[in-house]
Amino acid sequence: MAGTDDNITQQQSAAKPQKQPKQPKQPKPQQSGGGKKKEVKKETGLGLTNKKAENFGEWYSEVVVNGEMIEYYDISGCYILRPWSMAIWGIMQAFFDPEIKKMKIKNCYFPLFVSNTVLEKEKDHIEGFAPEVAWVTKSGESDLEIPIAIRPTSETVMYPYYSKWIRGHRDLPLKLNQWCNVVRWEFSNPTPFIRSREFLWQEGHTAFATKEEADTEVLEILELYRRIYEEYLAVPVVKGKKSELEKFAGGLYTTSVEAFIPNTGRGIQGATSHCLGQNFAKMFEINYENEKGEKAMVWQNSWAYSTRTIGVMVMVHGDDKGLVLPPKVASVQVIVIPVPYKDADTQGIFDACTATVNMLLEAGIRAESDARDNYSPGWKYSQWEMKGVPLRIEIGPKDLANKQVRAVRRDSGAKIDIGNDDLVVEIKKLLDNIQQNLFDVAKHKRDACIQIIHTWDEFVAALNEKKMILAPWCDEEEVEKDVKARTKGETGAAKTLCSPFDQPELPEGTVCFASGKPAKKWSYWGKSY
Amino acid sequence: MAGTDDNITQQQSAAKPQKQPKQPKQPKPQQSGGGKKKEVKKETGLGLTNKKAENFGEWYSEVVVNGEMIEYYDISGCYILRPWSMAIWGIMQAFFDPEIKKMKIKNCYFPLFVSNTVLEKEKDHIEGFAPEVAWVTKSGESDLEIPIAIRPTSETVMYPYYSKWIRGHRDLPLKLNQWCNVVRWEFSNPTPFIRSREFLWQEGHTAFATKEEADTEVLEILELYRRIYEEYLAVPVVKGKKSELEKFAGGLYTTSVEAFIPNTGRGIQGATSHCLGQNFAKMFEINYENEKGEKAMVWQNSWAYSTRTIGVMVMVHGDDKGLVLPPKVASVQVIVIPVPYKDADTQGIFDACTATVNMLLEAGIRAESDARDNYSPGWKYSQWEMKGVPLRIEIGPKDLANKQVRAVRRDSGAKIDIGNDDLVVEIKKLLDNIQQNLFDVAKHKRDACIQIIHTWDEFVAALNEKKMILAPWCDEEEVEKDVKARTKGETGAAKTLCSPFDQPELPEGTVCFASGKPAKKWSYWGKSY
Repeated sequence: MAGTDDNITQQQSAAKPQKQPKQPKQPKPQQSGGGKKKEVKKETGLGLTNKKAENFGEWYSEVVVNGEMIEYYDISGCYILRPWSMAIWGIMQAFFDPEIKKMKIKNCYFPLFVSNTVLEKEKDHIEGFAPEVAWVTKSGESDLEIPIAIRPTSETVMYPYYSKWIRGHRDLPLKLNQWCNVVRWEFSNPTPFIRSREFLWQEGHTAFATKEEADTEVLEILELYRRIYEEYLAVPVVKGKKSELEKFAGGLYTTSVEAFIPNTGRGIQGATSHCLGQNFAKMFEINYENEKGEKAMVWQNSWAYSTRTIGVMVMVHGDDKGLVLPPKVASVQVIVIPVPYKDADTQGIFDACTATVNMLLEAGIRAESDARDNYSPGWKYSQWEMKGVPLRIEIGPKDLANKQVRAVRRDSGAKIDIGNDDLVVEIKKLLDNIQQNLFDVAKHKRDACIQIIHTWDEFVAALNEKKMILAPWCDEEEVEKDVKARTKGETGAAKTLCSPFDQPELPEGTVCFASGKPAKKWSYWGKSY
Repeated sequence: MAGTDDNITQQQSAAKPQKQPKQPKQPKPQQSGGGKKKEVKKETGLGLTNKKAENFGEWYSEVVVNGEMIEYYDISGCYILRPWSMAIWGIMQAFFDPEIKKMKIKNCYFPLFVSNTVLEKEKDHIEGFAPEVAWVTKSGESDLEIPIAIRPTSETVMYPYYSKWIRGHRDLPLKLNQWCNVVRWEFSNPTPFIRSREFLWQEGHTAFATKEEADTEVLEILELYRRIYEEYLAVPVVKGKKSELEKFAGGLYTTSVEAFIPNTGRGIQGATSHCLGQNFAKMFEINYENEKGEKAMVWQNSWAYSTRTIGVMVMVHGDDKGLVLPPKVASVQVIVIPVPYKDADTQGIFDACTATVNMLLEAGIRAESDARDNYSPGWKYSQWEMKGVPLRIEIGPKDLANKQVRAVRRDSGAKIDIGNDDLVVEIKKLLDNIQQNLFDVAKHKRDACIQIIHTWDEFVAALNEKKMILAPWCDEEEVEKDVKARTKGETGAAKTLCSPFDQPELPEGTVCFASGKPAKKWSYWGKSY
């Protein structure tokens, strides 16, 4: 390993150094002899060295590695997505992709590369992305005649062709999506899933004849994003509109689902659905002949969710034992563990485990057994808790005798004995219950962090208490800039998260907490990722 | 559009110029008035300007564009995969991904970027790829401290981590796959799907304790590749082993499925399944403790198929009317076209079309109707023929009266009237028949190109006749190099395609066609893509 490790060290010092969590020692597996009765020692050493409540950043880095979601990579800000996290990505995709197909959105694939001239076409847009763009300047030993950018997003990659393909009103709407990787060479604090230099996402790009159609789609897509977070990841989100300062560079308006991480008191943009208006259409000359034979300009949307979703889920549900996966996205929903005792019917126990797994698999439940003979049951419990499997089934001599299994919930630790006859029905109920409970608990915690304030002093106090602040606001860009400037500190400045669609009543005469001017709306404020 | 076109021109002159096919004029759509009876002119102008038999290269470039699979992109060697081709990619993925999951291969995602030190670790391997590697040297305005490569393939990206993850025999086999883009900055003759600077593929990377397990998997995967070509794309392939000269750089041996393009007389490597042996394991120190407690080295495989598959399918089946898609991969298997006549029951015809589509959709057949009122039926026929839809259904007044539809096969042009009562059953039969017929015809054509030769003179003659040459060979690397040198011409040199697993008898005393030494095996030879 020396050679490889050297390389990694070299590369790291060359690029920005990347904080890597300490990994716990792997227990030394015992040699299996092949005999039936083996002594199995209770192993220790598995577990997290950091606590979520005490040391959140380190806890997070540790849990994504020890839960086998992520491996740190030798290029800073890039991470390996291991099967445990890719399976979650795949499950979300298996929901989202058919949903957008129902909306007649089709998948395509545009190149990774974009030429400078096209990239710079929309000025606000490029200003937003320019500092983070990675440039290819060489192939083999030769310099390219002109450097070529790697897509940070694909508006400018795609829209020259929208201009070509869209001629008449019958070419509209044009609704495309792609699943791909994008690169944003950020230098600030890379964090697995949350902020990485390369990430996976889907990006939808649509063009319509009318603003009404575009507006409608923006919200349909946002609802799908809400469902990914709330129904799949069990993470409560707020739907709303971004401020002018926080909207997508070059777009007309941005809607988003916003999550909140109580431990850090930070909001996090979960996914965004933008109406681009006609800005890009103007720059890229995406025109069509309307039904009256007149030249008209299209209305466009773009929308995306990324692997960030997985990080938000980890942050919201994880605990000091490790990951906690909602059943709907867990690649293993039920782990079945044999608990043999000396002189007990070991073979019978292993057979019961296999039979249980098969019964669950047939019922469409993602189940696996852990029959490894070189780890104790206790060690296995810890490992699967670390990996966040929603439900553990233990089968020991007593269970075998009583024709039952013992189920242990990852979320609550509750233990439930279930008779073999009711197994499938009860396990399904339990998984549904865990899914709902994770959401309820997360929502309760999130809601407890929401604080309504009216004055600057209340705002500052709430910010210090890591609240998700709901405040009456005049909706002026200069005021948001001012709030940012006044709250700037080591851990960033406060900004708007969104103006929620679900607006509380705004009594006449209510004034902006920051400017004292008449308030126009309620907005969420806070620090954010 | 002027602005955009300028950019494209600029960029093209900067990069290598890219040959773009002429696109036929779009017929000018007529204005729809909304009334029921409209005059619909027979439009012309849709069609290919090149013939497959006369001008294959231009025909291919034209058909992938006019069939709406590809749009040429403003960076040379990069292409846009439009929904019509991405759907095919998706259908193949929906076959392959579950198949490898049955083999307990799991999906993951490794970064796009690889550091120089890791990339260069396996010398033969990097020699094979170095000239084509694209390098990122800048982010925003800043130079990176060390240039970073974009993966041309992921052996060197992944294997440092295999070294980390594999400790004991219980960590084996390790079987991962990823679906991703890779970049090979080739300068020779970029061709959509077949040879492009960025392409999509899956790459599997597995590690085993024994060579036997690795050998077995190589062939299991190769069989899946054969099924993709033969069962999905209806393209006959030869399974075999690559010569030492043609094997994967750094690997132990390479197996492949080889297709053949009769029009050009060129072989084309369809997909490859490599046994890497222990070369990478040695370089990356991928060791484990075996059951006896001894240190041992893993055996590795890697295997991939790419979007090239789609190009091979186009080349094999396409004709002078456009694409011809095998039903199993066509996103639209049946296109239903109303054929209204003056004074006929137009509404009844349109309703029958809708009913037909719904009936087919319910039966799991991918059907669509083309109810556009600004194109004539004849123009629609041409367009869907261009796009290669396997079966067209026409419904006119006579069909309505007779409670039937008229089906027209894309492959043979045959017209079949089908009673409404038998519709689903008969359409399914027809689609199966088309699938089989495409394969049979392609196989017949391919087989007619195979020529067995014994002498150098026969070899040269067969090469000039664009044959796929099966020849007895001494299996010596120097001899293959010599053949290459002696046949080098404007259109490339002859080389081995593969040594087929299905070997004809090799009578004792048979000599190599090129060296006169004793022949060790039969090998396919030819020019190739």
